[in-house]
Amino acid sequence: MEHINKYVEENKDRFLEELFGLIRIPSISSIASHKPDMYKAAEYWKETLLAAGADKTDIYETEGNPVTYGEKIIDPSLPTVLVYSHMDVMPVDPIELWDSPPFEPEIRDGKIWARGADDDKGQGMMHAKAFELMVKTNTLPCNVKFMIEGEEEVGSPNLGEWCKNNKEMLKADIILVSDTSMIDAQTPSITTGLRGLAYWEVKVTGPNRDLHSGLFGGAVANPINVLSSMITKMVDDNGKITIPGFYDDVEEVSAEERELLAGAPFSEEVYKKAIDVEKLSGEKGYTPMEHTGIRPTFDICGIWGGYTGEGAKTVLPSKAFAKISCRLVPNQDHHKIADLFKEHFESIAPKSVKVEVTSLHGGQGYVCPITIPAYKAAEKAYADTYGIRPVPVRSGGSIPIISTFEEVLGIKSVLMGFGLEADAIHSPNENYPLEQFYNGIKTIPLFYKYFAEMSK
Amino acid sequence: MEHINKYVEENKDRFLEELFGLIRIPSISSIASHKPDMYKAAEYWKETLLAAGADKTDIYETEGNPVTYGEKIIDPSLPTVLVYSHMDVMPVDPIELWDSPPFEPEIRDGKIWARGADDDKGQGMMHAKAFELMVKTNTLPCNVKFMIEGEEEVGSPNLGEWCKNNKEMLKADIILVSDTSMIDAQTPSITTGLRGLAYWEVKVTGPNRDLHSGLFGGAVANPINVLSSMITKMVDDNGKITIPGFYDDVEEVSAEERELLAGAPFSEEVYKKAIDVEKLSGEKGYTPMEHTGIRPTFDICGIWGGYTGEGAKTVLPSKAFAKISCRLVPNQDHHKIADLFKEHFESIAPKSVKVEVTSLHGGQGYVCPITIPAYKAAEKAYADTYGIRPVPVRSGGSIPIISTFEEVLGIKSVLMGFGLEADAIHSPNENYPLEQFYNGIKTIPLFYKYFAEMSK
Repeated sequence: MEHINKYVEENKDRFLEELFGLIRIPSISSIASHKPDMYKAAEYWKETLLAAGADKTDIYETEGNPVTYGEKIIDPSLPTVLVYSHMDVMPVDPIELWDSPPFEPEIRDGKIWARGADDDKGQGMMHAKAFELMVKTNTLPCNVKFMIEGEEEVGSPNLGEWCKNNKEMLKADIILVSDTSMIDAQTPSITTGLRGLAYWEVKVTGPNRDLHSGLFGGAVANPINVLSSMITKMVDDNGKITIPGFYDDVEEVSAEERELLAGAPFSEEVYKKAIDVEKLSGEKGYTPMEHTGIRPTFDICGIWGGYTGEGAKTVLPSKAFAKISCRLVPNQDHHKIADLFKEHFESIAPKSVKVEVTSLHGGQGYVCPITIPAYKAAEKAYADTYGIRPVPVRSGGSIPIISTFEEVLGIKSVLMGFGLEADAIHSPNENYPLEQFYNGIKTIPLFYKYFAEMSK
Repeated sequence: MEHINKYVEENKDRFLEELFGLIRIPSISSIASHKPDMYKAAEYWKETLLAAGADKTDIYETEGNPVTYGEKIIDPSLPTVLVYSHMDVMPVDPIELWDSPPFEPEIRDGKIWARGADDDKGQGMMHAKAFELMVKTNTLPCNVKFMIEGEEEVGSPNLGEWCKNNKEMLKADIILVSDTSMIDAQTPSITTGLRGLAYWEVKVTGPNRDLHSGLFGGAVANPINVLSSMITKMVDDNGKITIPGFYDDVEEVSAEERELLAGAPFSEEVYKKAIDVEKLSGEKGYTPMEHTGIRPTFDICGIWGGYTGEGAKTVLPSKAFAKISCRLVPNQDHHKIADLFKEHFESIAPKSVKVEVTSLHGGQGYVCPITIPAYKAAEKAYADTYGIRPVPVRSGGSIPIISTFEEVLGIKSVLMGFGLEADAIHSPNENYPLEQFYNGIKTIPLFYKYFAEMSK
């Protein structure tokens, strides 16, 4: 694989500069004022694919943010790989915790520091550059299609529809995605399971205006007290979610599979130290890896209400809000869970308040069999780069669109991630090691090679 | 009382203009950047008292905001009334709910709309103008002292010390305060009991940074979930506060006094309608008037943590915060309660989080006997203006400094309030009816007259 290393070595600074150009566009999909940045990012991706060797590229409008598509069809009889990535990123709050500006990428300690450095501009750009490498060195063994969307971080509300409308164009044998992590920098892994997601915003209204907590306190329900108590009722003392029917479709994973899972390297002490907690938490009867891998969750992502400024304001507030999410496991339908939650949450509201539940987004879970050629090809490619066979893992994260691809396009996805846990995706100081970035660019062409061979 | 009505009639527009001048100073004591406004307000009060006829005025520095003092001693052998008011106001959040700018007073529907219109610039200014009226019409029957502080809304942390240092200067027979409400515009009332207050900020820290809720969710305690559950544990299903020892010093009010209290006009339907709630809340076994008058409370004044912006960000946050207050009843010591809460709250924290409790401020409750001359004088004065005898009531609010006055200066206070429930103090669209403002200015000289007569 001499030509791969040589090409990467000769072009590594330019690769980085091109990634930086993408990162500098603050394409935050959840904040409406960043809409123009989504178009800038779509344009940037189009130019990148064209320069890399795509025959045809286009920016497609959707009801939401645009999708950049590009393809190079070398021979219709050869297998086709459809690469998926997203150009949008998470918000940057709390901004004051960043050591360098999130949209001005910096190299420190061998890492790229920026929002999107890993998720998913860094990992997405690896595919563009690997594609370029194969084109320029005349080693492209398959047809390639790229679909880069702008709404992954808000649950891909329009990509399913877009896929439905472009089913013919998107025909492929496998979808290749780098939007996940490896176990650590020495231990490659392939994500074979993803959790689904349901996400709501709830609003609890007590009195019609903020009241003096002395004059009214004690007689009038405080919406923050009420919201806290409603949240508390959603999970019992054993960490089980109390929504009736919530576990109906949860597959109890077999003892055999739980044993395999337990074989993955995991140190509770290291894990606790990394996040500085004295004790882990979670549903009784399951291990931490199982908590994040095969069990659903109930987390409050945000809460606010009343006086949150400096000093002590005595007020009985009118309203309290929370953003609530459940990670779901394969088989749990997020639409059904969204309804079950809404119904239950409203049903436990005391009459002293009004409760509104709005479903904000959701996605289904996903499982990839470790027996398909694309999985095997990915396994071999990683092994060549890292020297060991990658571990199949079930991730706690959600990429809602992956199950939609299966539903709409009938195509399985292989999740060849190069992120690391320390990359702090979605958090301040997101980063991505240069080594992972370049390893990705080197590993991806190997995947194409093995996938083409195995598909013969 | 012809001279009173005549003087008020001739000067009413000027009175209002002078109040507006005071209101226009945004003297928010809980926000450090408003410090210069506190000095402007102190200066304004000094000029107001001088113009009204004070012989001597001064602005006193404290560790916090200044105190304006003024006096007119006409005869040392006559009784002395010490007027207390405060020049500071509450913050104005949420600013978007105000119909007109909070510090630009407007007259609409016969009311003054502004922060401080009632609490306590409007009610305080009544005393300055009543004093002026008595001086200018040669009817002042007592010595008068004014003490106007700038930290009432943050719990008067420095006024107790200032009183201690100026005990001789502050000698008086009664302290007269208008910082409370009447039952309604037709039913005057005198507040004979005030609740105490304890106020804390709590911080719950889970992981050392915001985490991806998918990758970590389920295994790592979410500080918002934990805070909600800790808050919920503080009050049981009967509305009783669960802090051990919390009720030890709470006086169970006698059946007789509860019956008197029940005689005050109160319509639950009207009360609920005014604040738009379907059902009231509160401790089992007590009426709404008792909930606010004679029972302690546990209210969350503010809560925040995690993602609170637009859209859906999936995050397992690092921290959650709440501002928590208890209204206390006479005999409960706020220092003791502050310690009991801190100890208990920390003791129920699970090991998966770190909890910090900071006591922000507090104040003792207060009871005024209805048998003292000053109470009787107030009763007569109200009766002259409103045509009916005022009702003695126990207010749910706190004026922590009132019990400090008794402790430090050994002087009782009479709480002659002219506010109305609809005045929305501490809330957006605070207002004060012109009629109450002018009625106050007319009633106060009658208090002085009767108090001087009864003290002979």
